[in-house]
Amino acid sequence: MADVRPNASENASEITTGPISGSRKVFHSTGSGLRVPFRRIELTNGEHLDVYDTSGPYTDETATVDVHSGLHRVRAGWTDGREHRTQLAWARAGVITREMEFVATREGLSPEFVREEVASGRAVIPANRCHPESEPMVIGKNFLVKVNANIGSSAVTSSVEEEVEKMVWATRWGADTVMDLSTGKRIHETRERILRNSPVPVGTVPIYQALEEVGGDPAELSWEVYRDTVVEQCEQGVDYMTVHAGVLLRYVPLTAQRVTGIVSRGGSIMAAWCLAHHRENFLYTHFSELCEILRDYDVTFSLGDGLRPGSIADANDRAQFAELETLGELTRIAREHDVQVMVEGPGHVPMHLIAENVRREEELCGEAPFYTLGPLTTDIAPAYDHITSGIGAAVIAQAGTAMLCYVTPKEHLGLPDRDDVKTGVITYKIAAHAADLAKGHPRAQERDDALSRARFEFRWTDQFRLSLDPDTARAFHDETLPAEPAKTAHFCSMCGPKFCSMKITQDIRELAEERGLTTVEAIEAGMREKSEEFARTGGEIYLPLAD
Amino acid sequence: MADVRPNASENASEITTGPISGSRKVFHSTGSGLRVPFRRIELTNGEHLDVYDTSGPYTDETATVDVHSGLHRVRAGWTDGREHRTQLAWARAGVITREMEFVATREGLSPEFVREEVASGRAVIPANRCHPESEPMVIGKNFLVKVNANIGSSAVTSSVEEEVEKMVWATRWGADTVMDLSTGKRIHETRERILRNSPVPVGTVPIYQALEEVGGDPAELSWEVYRDTVVEQCEQGVDYMTVHAGVLLRYVPLTAQRVTGIVSRGGSIMAAWCLAHHRENFLYTHFSELCEILRDYDVTFSLGDGLRPGSIADANDRAQFAELETLGELTRIAREHDVQVMVEGPGHVPMHLIAENVRREEELCGEAPFYTLGPLTTDIAPAYDHITSGIGAAVIAQAGTAMLCYVTPKEHLGLPDRDDVKTGVITYKIAAHAADLAKGHPRAQERDDALSRARFEFRWTDQFRLSLDPDTARAFHDETLPAEPAKTAHFCSMCGPKFCSMKITQDIRELAEERGLTTVEAIEAGMREKSEEFARTGGEIYLPLAD
Repeated sequence: MADVRPNASENASEITTGPISGSRKVFHSTGSGLRVPFRRIELTNGEHLDVYDTSGPYTDETATVDVHSGLHRVRAGWTDGREHRTQLAWARAGVITREMEFVATREGLSPEFVREEVASGRAVIPANRCHPESEPMVIGKNFLVKVNANIGSSAVTSSVEEEVEKMVWATRWGADTVMDLSTGKRIHETRERILRNSPVPVGTVPIYQALEEVGGDPAELSWEVYRDTVVEQCEQGVDYMTVHAGVLLRYVPLTAQRVTGIVSRGGSIMAAWCLAHHRENFLYTHFSELCEILRDYDVTFSLGDGLRPGSIADANDRAQFAELETLGELTRIAREHDVQVMVEGPGHVPMHLIAENVRREEELCGEAPFYTLGPLTTDIAPAYDHITSGIGAAVIAQAGTAMLCYVTPKEHLGLPDRDDVKTGVITYKIAAHAADLAKGHPRAQERDDALSRARFEFRWTDQFRLSLDPDTARAFHDETLPAEPAKTAHFCSMCGPKFCSMKITQDIRELAEERGLTTVEAIEAGMREKSEEFARTGGEIYLPLAD
Repeated sequence: MADVRPNASENASEITTGPISGSRKVFHSTGSGLRVPFRRIELTNGEHLDVYDTSGPYTDETATVDVHSGLHRVRAGWTDGREHRTQLAWARAGVITREMEFVATREGLSPEFVREEVASGRAVIPANRCHPESEPMVIGKNFLVKVNANIGSSAVTSSVEEEVEKMVWATRWGADTVMDLSTGKRIHETRERILRNSPVPVGTVPIYQALEEVGGDPAELSWEVYRDTVVEQCEQGVDYMTVHAGVLLRYVPLTAQRVTGIVSRGGSIMAAWCLAHHRENFLYTHFSELCEILRDYDVTFSLGDGLRPGSIADANDRAQFAELETLGELTRIAREHDVQVMVEGPGHVPMHLIAENVRREEELCGEAPFYTLGPLTTDIAPAYDHITSGIGAAVIAQAGTAMLCYVTPKEHLGLPDRDDVKTGVITYKIAAHAADLAKGHPRAQERDDALSRARFEFRWTDQFRLSLDPDTARAFHDETLPAEPAKTAHFCSMCGPKFCSMKITQDIRELAEERGLTTVEAIEAGMREKSEEFARTGGEIYLPLAD
């Protein structure tokens, strides 16, 4: 790939490095001494909060990054001296792997709990043994909800370097995995560069490359071409693959009366192949052989929902649920081969029909981690589909979805740029976190409480540092109050520089602590004092704008 | 107000007029001949869709707008020859008023149904007889979910003209009501200008002006000052007023151990007054007198939740629900006086605690329309709180909230500008519409289906026109495919200019229609034909970016 290497200066200008403002990289040790990365948010009151970190060495000031040589291989040697087995096989054998130990520390849970979840198939650890650069993570409904960001060049648009930077940029803001959906030329090389530089698992849809191999004509596709493509991608280190093996010939007619027909790329390709040959989907008929290939590398299946609804009108219809039954059958076959499995979900679904998708998937697919695209809860807001789908993502994650595939503001309209990627990731981190709170994840609320305390105590800088996007939060605040003293002032631009509502509560609390009174007694005393203080000082209350 | 009138040219440059792109104003006649405005979206296939319209004459090309003389008084004479009674009194008396008839046509429901909902107190029609410029609208859980936008100048910031334009701008994008939260100087004059030019009901929080009257010291507030302020605002034409009469002296101690104390402006002012005098809230002790004043103008109560939670940690706590019980008591008193009532709700609430807020409000307040601020479902995303709260707004609206108070990206950080207002309104229209779909409002899905059909048939221009924000949707599309022919091309920038998945379904359907075959037969025939066609043409399928 020497011919495509940018020179050092180009590279320096292309890849975003350095810590997120107000944070620094720290490492927690596991029982056996593995170093697990966290992002430490330093607060002005001397406290700190360590949060889950997906950004890899790019945010580590002590690390040197060179996209040409690739990332340090954190998992190098982890599998030495142990036979090639999948995480599922080890978990079933009662063995806690280093990957399980690593993710246990990341999630703040016990290694044995992780092993049990993986053994049951309720969780997966996508970690191809040929992708040692990736930091292990776990996907399952009893862990933190994860977010995937799609990247990938298309024939006409972005360069290899741009795609690597998109991956770095997406993981900087919290993407837990990325999918390389590249099409067109340089597809192998783009994927190679992304894999060697990605600290997170990388997913692909092999049918796209297979289609390129046969010149873009679905009718020319064959099991042999597809198989060779999958082996190539396994060797490169792809961690999970979307396979549309559930699009059966007899299901295609069920889409004929839909408002928006078939909207999945992979689904449409396989439907086209079935129509062209009037034969059954070769991914379905060769599924066991596919399992044997993925098992050898511990590549995780992401069973694609090729017949997912593309509009509110088509949600939860026969075509969608017929395919889901087949995905359940394929899940069982994959597990018989010790291959880890996720199942993909919709799409476009109105709020009242969302929960049924999770319930059916859990029943039919043995609680395999559900991985959904949104869903969009209305069709009427193109240019805002990160929001129409962010609502659905939060609702479906609360119901049990394990990973959310982000949607950007450009969905349905065009190709996302750098800002769209950030907006999509942040929106989906919000949806995932809202669901973590609703599901009662043990440590999820720590960050909300830390930020709310900072807000109550007028520690503006800490509010920015604790937020998902410190740069934008600070910029919005500075539009009204740029001066540095404002960062510690006991007011906000909505209140003006005077006594405010929160202050009342603070005074009452301090009084209670001084006096060692029970709160209510303290309040009563406090209220009497306030009565005098008000009379004395003519204290004022100023008004925040929003009520 | 002559002294503050901008000249015509200033005015022309300040107020946004003209139809939304691809739409024009039309009027539907009611049984008795009232003209009800709708926005007609013209489609390129000759069809059209008439949608609910909040924008008033500003989007009517045939109307002349002069903010100095104010809007045409659409309700002038509606009450002539009928005694002054509230909509609630008329509804209870079995009378269908013109306001009820008007909103029935707006909502596509029967006038009698509207009367029943108003009579039961489940719905309100905020329509001060002194605000004849407003086009009647209804707020209730059995009608379309409504959205309020807060505007209002503060001491240092925007001018009267800017606030009028903010109102015009917010209603252009779909705000069903606006609240004027002005503080500081020119508060009367700002409100006067907004009222005379507002086609939607205007709400206020009278305690803000009352506080100005006493020089900003809550301790100096009194029932007499407040009463005179309320009468002044009733005379001006304010349609609904937020009254924090539920903040009782004994509830203030319950906020002492909260993470964020009291975060409502009105709540903090009344708490400060109670603390200063160690006496009961004068809004509570004089509530019946207040009812008599509001009844004379048919001003609707919006009972404020002064003790709402300001953080996830404080959600659904004793202070919040204690106040809600009192709001239930006040609701009963207001209804005894034939005064219409809404009840305000939180705030900051995690997803799993949202439904309980609606259930308790309906039980305690006799199903009075619930009017909530968000709620925000997490505290960790300042700069994105339109999204953290848009998620909560959709969930709480699905559960039965009748009106949503928008939150802009500047929440907690600064004062919203024009772009923030639009983003806030669009985000909340999405949340409201997602809930309308989930609640099965009879006509809600028409627009989704029309847009999805346009998408499936590659009518790009119609997709833009049917979207909540046609300008931004078109701009995003044009970034990749600016040329006009692209607006009718059978592809998008994600697919490339070739045969795509949706086309397969189209061909199958057309075949079925031509042949008059049952669909499945047609598919089978179609699949055979496709098989030949593929072989013949070597047809290709191109790949959209998102899968």
